[in-house]
Amino acid sequence: MSDHHTRPALLDADHASLLHQAVDLGLDFASGRLRENLVLRHATPAELIKRLAGPLPQRGVETDQELVDLLTEVASWSVAQADPRYLAFPDTGNSAAGLAAEILAAFLNQNLIAFDRSAPAASVIEAQLIVWLREVIGFDAPPLTDYQGLRSLGGMWTSGGNMSNHTALTVALAHAFPQVRQSGLRSLPERPLILLASGVEHFSYLSAAQSLGLGEESLLWAPPRSDFTSDPDALAALLENPPDGSRIVMLVGVAGNCRTTGIDDLEALADLCERHGIWFHVDACHGGSLLFSPRLRQPLAGIERADSVALDPHKGLFVTYPSSYVLFRDPATLGRLARYPERADDPDCLDLGLITPFYGSRGFESLKLWALLQHQGAEGIARLVESRHATYLRMTAMLERVGCFQALGTSDFYRHAFVFLPPPAAQFLTELRDHEVATPLLRAVVSRFTGEFSERLYRNGLAAFDHFALMDLADRIGLGPNNKYEVMGMCVGHPNIDAATEAAIESELRHLAAELAAPMLDALRSLAPGHGPTAGPPDEPAAPDGQLGPAGW
Amino acid sequence: MSDHHTRPALLDADHASLLHQAVDLGLDFASGRLRENLVLRHATPAELIKRLAGPLPQRGVETDQELVDLLTEVASWSVAQADPRYLAFPDTGNSAAGLAAEILAAFLNQNLIAFDRSAPAASVIEAQLIVWLREVIGFDAPPLTDYQGLRSLGGMWTSGGNMSNHTALTVALAHAFPQVRQSGLRSLPERPLILLASGVEHFSYLSAAQSLGLGEESLLWAPPRSDFTSDPDALAALLENPPDGSRIVMLVGVAGNCRTTGIDDLEALADLCERHGIWFHVDACHGGSLLFSPRLRQPLAGIERADSVALDPHKGLFVTYPSSYVLFRDPATLGRLARYPERADDPDCLDLGLITPFYGSRGFESLKLWALLQHQGAEGIARLVESRHATYLRMTAMLERVGCFQALGTSDFYRHAFVFLPPPAAQFLTELRDHEVATPLLRAVVSRFTGEFSERLYRNGLAAFDHFALMDLADRIGLGPNNKYEVMGMCVGHPNIDAATEAAIESELRHLAAELAAPMLDALRSLAPGHGPTAGPPDEPAAPDGQLGPAGW
Repeated sequence: MSDHHTRPALLDADHASLLHQAVDLGLDFASGRLRENLVLRHATPAELIKRLAGPLPQRGVETDQELVDLLTEVASWSVAQADPRYLAFPDTGNSAAGLAAEILAAFLNQNLIAFDRSAPAASVIEAQLIVWLREVIGFDAPPLTDYQGLRSLGGMWTSGGNMSNHTALTVALAHAFPQVRQSGLRSLPERPLILLASGVEHFSYLSAAQSLGLGEESLLWAPPRSDFTSDPDALAALLENPPDGSRIVMLVGVAGNCRTTGIDDLEALADLCERHGIWFHVDACHGGSLLFSPRLRQPLAGIERADSVALDPHKGLFVTYPSSYVLFRDPATLGRLARYPERADDPDCLDLGLITPFYGSRGFESLKLWALLQHQGAEGIARLVESRHATYLRMTAMLERVGCFQALGTSDFYRHAFVFLPPPAAQFLTELRDHEVATPLLRAVVSRFTGEFSERLYRNGLAAFDHFALMDLADRIGLGPNNKYEVMGMCVGHPNIDAATEAAIESELRHLAAELAAPMLDALRSLAPGHGPTAGPPDEPAAPDGQLGPAGW
Repeated sequence: MSDHHTRPALLDADHASLLHQAVDLGLDFASGRLRENLVLRHATPAELIKRLAGPLPQRGVETDQELVDLLTEVASWSVAQADPRYLAFPDTGNSAAGLAAEILAAFLNQNLIAFDRSAPAASVIEAQLIVWLREVIGFDAPPLTDYQGLRSLGGMWTSGGNMSNHTALTVALAHAFPQVRQSGLRSLPERPLILLASGVEHFSYLSAAQSLGLGEESLLWAPPRSDFTSDPDALAALLENPPDGSRIVMLVGVAGNCRTTGIDDLEALADLCERHGIWFHVDACHGGSLLFSPRLRQPLAGIERADSVALDPHKGLFVTYPSSYVLFRDPATLGRLARYPERADDPDCLDLGLITPFYGSRGFESLKLWALLQHQGAEGIARLVESRHATYLRMTAMLERVGCFQALGTSDFYRHAFVFLPPPAAQFLTELRDHEVATPLLRAVVSRFTGEFSERLYRNGLAAFDHFALMDLADRIGLGPNNKYEVMGMCVGHPNIDAATEAAIESELRHLAAELAAPMLDALRSLAPGHGPTAGPPDEPAAPDGQLGPAGW
């Protein structure tokens, strides 16, 4: 026998120290100490695989400290979305109340499938949160003390915006074709279609069409407006003339697209849907946080007329993954999916698992947002969201001040997309275009240097911007509106970026701009008419299909 | 303006005390202090709604202690799945390493959608865990240091067994009909069917058929064997004669059914699938933990021949929700779903979000199982699983010793289903049956008193058994095999139930048995021929369709 001493595996009082160490480790990560005060210490997949991979451990560690050391190593190679210098995505997850609740929820490990034996208090907390979120949207929200049964609840937790959108589509489809759950899509008299604007969509609709049996061909695309919002006129034209043999079952409105945060005219879309009797889904995964602010929620007017709304508190509401919710104006539409219809009207039944497609056993994810609401109140959240918006405006002004970036579109809140285009390059680009140098060559240079800027910035670890592909719908670069570029995104997640941090970011941007301005101009010069090909013109990179950072996923 | 002082919302060093208090609260819940040393303090939905519900808070609390008090209240009305007296479900979630990792993961809040900007180390840890789980199953598992790109990975995290099964079906369907993702189910030449045994199935296949567009009618049911396993002969008959116009795309094997833990003959099912060229999915959500024990894994032989395997570490592997994985023998089958196929073969791309249907932004759920494996090693987990099995056998012997329970089937591990049927009642039941008293009346009495036993036990809070509906496939009660009863389930999750705890549970069972034995006999007597109807024969309750506890969901 081995003389190896395995540490006690299951929680007892002796583990208090280990668990408190986990909190301290978390705080050290949050403070930056574990990551050399960088947003992240950069490494490639191959480098981190080499560092972290190994065979399946047959024996455990000999001391708990060894486990802490392993966790420390993992943390030290993680990226800090809550760092004020992290400007790639809004998922800060850094509310103190949310974290406290998540820690407790781990110990509670309630199973939200059922009330008895699984999640007594937790079922009530989650139902309460659903009622509150309905109220925030503007849906009918009778107090939970008047609870009438699952069919009246009208909302559910999901694992992410992706699944909130999948679920909304599932419910919309069963609403349009009640027989679908029994007989399947093959039994329907018409082909169901989903109507949405191209260029501003989230990938989850494609994914849902692929996975829910509809097929990619069931997506009916309308052209977007140049401000990265859905175009009600273009949508109306398709609603009036749907393809033969098809029936549009859902129109998607976007309350904050994932790349530039443009907010659709939801009133206009609601009018359209009412006129045509079409399910109106509003994807407010990004814009939902604005609903807490009486001032900032104005652009979302009409959301209360949606049939379904996807909210993603783990985006922009300071709680950790997974926290997403899908709410239904008419609770009976979700109620149609009740597993045992006769129990769905029983006020003594609060078994949430009876009415949640896709989910069985699952944890107490609702506690964190409930705790944040208790800790801060809706007013406190409004202040955070408004403070973030002010910070966003200040940071956008900073980008403008640096003077080397061309924005690709208006942005309604927290996210801004742009390319690297310093004034001499911009001017020379115009000249080359006017001399009829092929625009694909010019676009390639813009993409290449924006990508290079982004990568250098990211690898330095002093600030993290996003990096993805975007159409220049408004033709801000001047090389035509239907072209994709590699772009950088600045997404302000943290409500408070202090002046020193802002200055440090600005300084880093100026430093990189100075490094890259001359090579970029050289690259453009090499394209000038009469300029002998030295090493040949650069290959035009394909417009990047891959999303290089989290936006647009 | 209000003079209300809102607490700082976002994490800073001043919150250390709050977060450590959350750990202490968790430890107090674990120890039983917060729940009066009961498994739970019982309350109904209406009672807890009254206690916990309220309007959307407009203003936050004035001190962090108020938040702690609220969380304490929630915890005090929660049920302790990790308490050794909790015998309803195996989801203890109480590994110390898993909890430490989950606490840290909350602070890290990595986004497993992508490597850069989102989850550098976390993507490696999750990929590593997938490789390890493949090795545990017996699939090819080249070391992660030989990583060849996403298409070679062959597994993914999901939010639960339900979604692992949904995902396996999605992949199996795309394997059988590659065009389905483009053109949808309506374009297929044949109707896809899923073949599975009735009575032993998990509800997720019905749910998947309903939500993924196939429809309930796409489930092809074979009768089960009386030991609550799939019957290879019955399945073979259907494989040989599938309904006209259809094609069976998946056969479901069950490695531990959710009600009695019967394990299918996986070798026989694998043979069948190979012979017919059918996708073989093994649902090992319950049985998967046995794979760590060289001894206990023998009944799962053949699992390595499955095309897909669903594992649910949050069941029976001591980690908290959500922790589920679906693994694919041939990684290319999952690879078919890659969003950008050209990136799926790039060893420098570890963006897990490119190959995970249903999931976009999501958290670092893989850290906890990785940490448990580091802390205990596969050998340590084997010891836990084996210790739990020994405890289960001991507890089953205890139930036998009490002498008032009739088991409804053999059980291969950790879960045992039975009705309350004390010897005098059992004997009188036989007499009544032999006197041709209608068996529905007799069954109703058995169900009613089993339900009553279960409810009294549960409400007392000294032990929590499961309560659900089950067919008496083996006709152990003697009233025919095709009848459903309300049953109790004993599911041993905690590996260590000490003698004193066992004795306390036994004493409580004996106490309730003594209370209910006479009334049950009276109820049966009232059915005897010649016995005048006093208050009329009891109504026969419908066989409970609803699952009253977590089993069978």
